[in-house]
Amino acid sequence: MVEFEVKTRERDDLRDITALVQQAVSTVCLQDGVCTVFIPHTTAGVTIVENADPSVAKDMLFILDRMVPWDDPNYTHTEGNSAAHVKCSLMGCSLSIPVRGGQLVLGTWQGVYLCEFDGPRTRRVQVQVINA
Amino acid sequence: MVEFEVKTRERDDLRDITALVQQAVSTVCLQDGVCTVFIPHTTAGVTIVENADPSVAKDMLFILDRMVPWDDPNYTHTEGNSAAHVKCSLMGCSLSIPVRGGQLVLGTWQGVYLCEFDGPRTRRVQVQVINA
Amino acid sequence: MVEFEVKTRERDDLRDITALVQQAVSTVCLQDGVCTVFIPHTTAGVTIVENADPSVAKDMLFILDRMVPWDDPNYTHTEGNSAAHVKCSLMGCSLSIPVRGGQLVLGTWQGVYLCEFDGPRTRRVQVQVINA
Repeated sequence: MVEFEVKTRERDDLRDITALVQQAVSTVCLQDGVCTVFIPHTTAGVTIVENADPSVAKDMLFILDRMVPWDDPNYTHTEGNSAAHVKCSLMGCSLSIPVRGGQLVLGTWQGVYLCEFDGPRTRRVQVQVINA
Repeated sequence: MVEFEVKTRERDDLRDITALVQQAVSTVCLQDGVCTVFIPHTTAGVTIVENADPSVAKDMLFILDRMVPWDDPNYTHTEGNSAAHVKCSLMGCSLSIPVRGGQLVLGTWQGVYLCEFDGPRTRRVQVQVINA
Repeated sequence: MVEFEVKTRERDDLRDITALVQQAVSTVCLQDGVCTVFIPHTTAGVTIVENADPSVAKDMLFILDRMVPWDDPNYTHTEGNSAAHVKCSLMGCSLSIPVRGGQLVLGTWQGVYLCEFDGPRTRRVQVQVINA
């Protein structure tokens, strides 16, 4: 298992970690199998987003914030970050990506992104690979 | 593969199953690998939520219900539980968690929760572990 | 790893791919393990939905469209399909399903569905299986 850290820059932030995940797969010399990316936090998740146009990530954060507004008098959690917990569960904290010939089998426009919903912070990412 | 049951208490309910999933991993003596938690239902899912303050789970159910209201004259499914199906897909029915030294590699505040959206019922949970 | 294609019919479409995923598992003769279904696109995902009543899929697409409207003057992505990207991340692009005795361990009402959010198109599905 390989672990690395990512610094986020704002309360809501999407950080492209594709190269770091690929590096983890290369480090353990996995040729064919599955790579599991796991985020050990409750207000940060992981998803796959188009990596060509940064406006996709921007719109995604806008839409998630409209779906799950940060402030609401009905929220009871005293830390005030209930919205972050829900957005994290909507994106998910684990992702399984096939690996073939040592490479993540991602589509042309796919990038793996850490999703920050209560930053800025330093987040950990765990990568576990399994041989087929 | 290990299977266990969980009884839910209300229509919408989050039940902490972390100890039961860890017990399944221990039963099969997995040391290093990945644990897949799978819910074989269409109106119950699985997610990871903060396990320290119960108000997080409460707010999560409130927010999901606001996003996907139970009643809507546009719903066509005659069983009347369309909202439960959507909430289930939003959370997901499978989760992959790395295992190291026989332990689930969860973050400090992470708990694995069965998500009930059309209860109360008895739900099944399947745990499959794969060696690294 | 097995790859197959699916043609979608509308902008938003859910296509039952359960039989094709099961066929992929049978092709590689996996008896016990985990099957990872991965969609290499950024506007199509994968989820598990009830396969008995087609109205469930219909209501799901209606609810997702209400949550994430296609048009909004605040969207900045010039391709105009920001909603599709978000709906794709909400459903997810990977799914891990346990396999036992050569069969996907699905619940009675569970079907695996490709989720199209920017169709109609021809989509690829990748299936990777790992022995327990």
